[in-house]
Amino acid sequence: MEKFLQKAKEASRVIATLSPKRKSDILMQMAEKLEKYYKDIVKANKEDMSLGRKFDLTPALLDRLFLDKERVFKMADSLREIAILKEPVGRVLEGWINKDNLRIEKVSVPIGVIGIIYESRPNVTSDTAALCFKSGNGCILKGGKEAMKSNVAIASILSSVLEENNLPKEAITLLPDYSREGVSKLIKMDKYVDLIIPRGGEKLIRYISQNSIVPVIKHDKGLCHTYIHEKADIKKAISISVNAKVQRPGVCNALETLLVDKTVAQTILPILKEEFDKHSTLLKGCEETLKIIDIQKATEDDWDKEYLENILSIKVVSDLEEAITHIQRYSSFHSDAIVTEDYSVAEEFLNRIDSSCVYVNASTRFTDGGEFGFGAEVGISTSKLHSRGPMGINDLTTYKYKIYGDGQVRE
Amino acid sequence: MEKFLQKAKEASRVIATLSPKRKSDILMQMAEKLEKYYKDIVKANKEDMSLGRKFDLTPALLDRLFLDKERVFKMADSLREIAILKEPVGRVLEGWINKDNLRIEKVSVPIGVIGIIYESRPNVTSDTAALCFKSGNGCILKGGKEAMKSNVAIASILSSVLEENNLPKEAITLLPDYSREGVSKLIKMDKYVDLIIPRGGEKLIRYISQNSIVPVIKHDKGLCHTYIHEKADIKKAISISVNAKVQRPGVCNALETLLVDKTVAQTILPILKEEFDKHSTLLKGCEETLKIIDIQKATEDDWDKEYLENILSIKVVSDLEEAITHIQRYSSFHSDAIVTEDYSVAEEFLNRIDSSCVYVNASTRFTDGGEFGFGAEVGISTSKLHSRGPMGINDLTTYKYKIYGDGQVRE
Repeated sequence: MEKFLQKAKEASRVIATLSPKRKSDILMQMAEKLEKYYKDIVKANKEDMSLGRKFDLTPALLDRLFLDKERVFKMADSLREIAILKEPVGRVLEGWINKDNLRIEKVSVPIGVIGIIYESRPNVTSDTAALCFKSGNGCILKGGKEAMKSNVAIASILSSVLEENNLPKEAITLLPDYSREGVSKLIKMDKYVDLIIPRGGEKLIRYISQNSIVPVIKHDKGLCHTYIHEKADIKKAISISVNAKVQRPGVCNALETLLVDKTVAQTILPILKEEFDKHSTLLKGCEETLKIIDIQKATEDDWDKEYLENILSIKVVSDLEEAITHIQRYSSFHSDAIVTEDYSVAEEFLNRIDSSCVYVNASTRFTDGGEFGFGAEVGISTSKLHSRGPMGINDLTTYKYKIYGDGQVRE
Repeated sequence: MEKFLQKAKEASRVIATLSPKRKSDILMQMAEKLEKYYKDIVKANKEDMSLGRKFDLTPALLDRLFLDKERVFKMADSLREIAILKEPVGRVLEGWINKDNLRIEKVSVPIGVIGIIYESRPNVTSDTAALCFKSGNGCILKGGKEAMKSNVAIASILSSVLEENNLPKEAITLLPDYSREGVSKLIKMDKYVDLIIPRGGEKLIRYISQNSIVPVIKHDKGLCHTYIHEKADIKKAISISVNAKVQRPGVCNALETLLVDKTVAQTILPILKEEFDKHSTLLKGCEETLKIIDIQKATEDDWDKEYLENILSIKVVSDLEEAITHIQRYSSFHSDAIVTEDYSVAEEFLNRIDSSCVYVNASTRFTDGGEFGFGAEVGISTSKLHSRGPMGINDLTTYKYKIYGDGQVRE
């Protein structure tokens, strides 16, 4: 493994200094070639699908795995969108003259080699390869075993375009070892790999965070809260809560626990129940909640659970303080919201809740690169350092200082 | 240990939202109290010193450990400097309106709890505690065993000021367990500790990087290069090389390997030898160098060595390409410089050398928070993510997104 990681590192140095135009051109060629050879990809995918059926993958997983002409063409379109993103490398983030008249510039540069570990969706292969390439990084892709043939087909088309442009194909490398051991080795190779981004199940992410020597930016779970304050606009409170829960329950920015101020519980809980019933949401409530509406009883475990399903736990809290304490204790610090018309309460919530995204009067479902306006997204970081929340292509860069002198020495 | 780390975490939440004025006031009080009780600190330090002599610490280490009234008053002044630094928390880094008219602000916030592991200098205790406090972070300090009593004296004065201000004293905590085991436990506590900054020997840093579950920002070695290009101004080349090596040879931004273009080697090497001889620098050269000046022969090991002494290795290279290849292979990517009057060569060097600080026509000794104009410095990061190169107080913050809505839901 060391040998090919070394090649990836060398390749990343070549990619790092390509001009923006050249990178876009190559991404456009990649899109074209994916379309041209879509049959090869669909054929490889068929093999993955039949193995998947044999190994009893769930219908949902099989659907995520499935590729046809339309889906391959969508992948190609996504590459075209990435091609025209604003150049992430070479942005002057700050610049100044120091006391010795040195001109110092803090400039965005590629991170180097990024290892991305993900699961079944094969379009992640082309998307992340393209995002890494556009930001001047080499990438080591480790997809799911179940999508192996599809991923090989996609990655080999992308890297062949690099070769056609006289660039080292190792800048886009699929990890040849699909075993857990392959990952175990990869995350120890800090000499060649600069960053690991794990996307996937909690267990995988925990394993990587606990064992990686290479820095990790996690894409972990989202246990999101919305707190309906006593000064909430009831209409907003209802539409925000319902949207945050039901619009797409299976994702990390969906609402899991609703906190309702006791002053408005009597008024709002019956309306909420009516609305959620329309969406067949399974509601679970604390004892106070059960006094007002007839739903299932929530247990202590419920406050700690990312359902990723159309289930919502509801807790009546006595004030802002209790709401904040609950969130600080149970939140995964992904996205938390307050609904209130009270200016000072909103400010206090925004300041004291230390989640990557803190909302006033809006659905937590907006925590998303696309919704933020970043274009194609790398994912949503639940790490605290380097990049937090929705990660756009700029988050795949770091910086260096360029210092321009005319003979300065230090006294 | 878990219990007091939990307290530190809770304390950090209180510190996180203090007003700038309150934080400065408290830092000023800390400075005053250090001065008022300087005798206690000097007394504790005497015990450390006598133990240090007993355990045969080198004179250099003993000098770093030593505190008298003057040095304690300097520590206090340094707190006053930190007190008046520009507020690092709450800076709006970016802000925009998304398509749904959500106002999104990316705002700097404290990181949380920072564990700092360092060696003998006791002033690091007060400096880092103050930098963490000013940036709204809690800190867990793990100083060197040899400075234990001094550190206890200093830290207890600082945390007593927190108590006097009705703040949780655990926001500044000295790790009670001074053993390696104490560190081993600390770096696994990612539930309570958000960042580890190790400053110290290579072995310690390697141990921490390889075993920490908590994210690490290293303050590692500096193997710095200066390349004298054929179009260099000879006078600048000489003063820059000499300054980078001899002005303070024991630090990480000092020059270790000088690369000399073969076109100018014949002219410049004899002058360089004459200048370095004035500073009694021990020179070691490659075979080409030895043909021109009579110095010690460098071995392969020398290119890989951070001397931290008044020793310099010299290599003659045939062109820019060879210089870049040498630096990419041996550099610790801390600080590397070129001396040239050629515009395009300077640009190429700046772009292709991926070190945290890349210089044209200046001494690498400028890689320093103070010289960069950051004020008190946390150190010099040799990590690639979150913070690279000189770390100022702003680097002790991360960010969150505050999102201001008026009822937006996602479609």
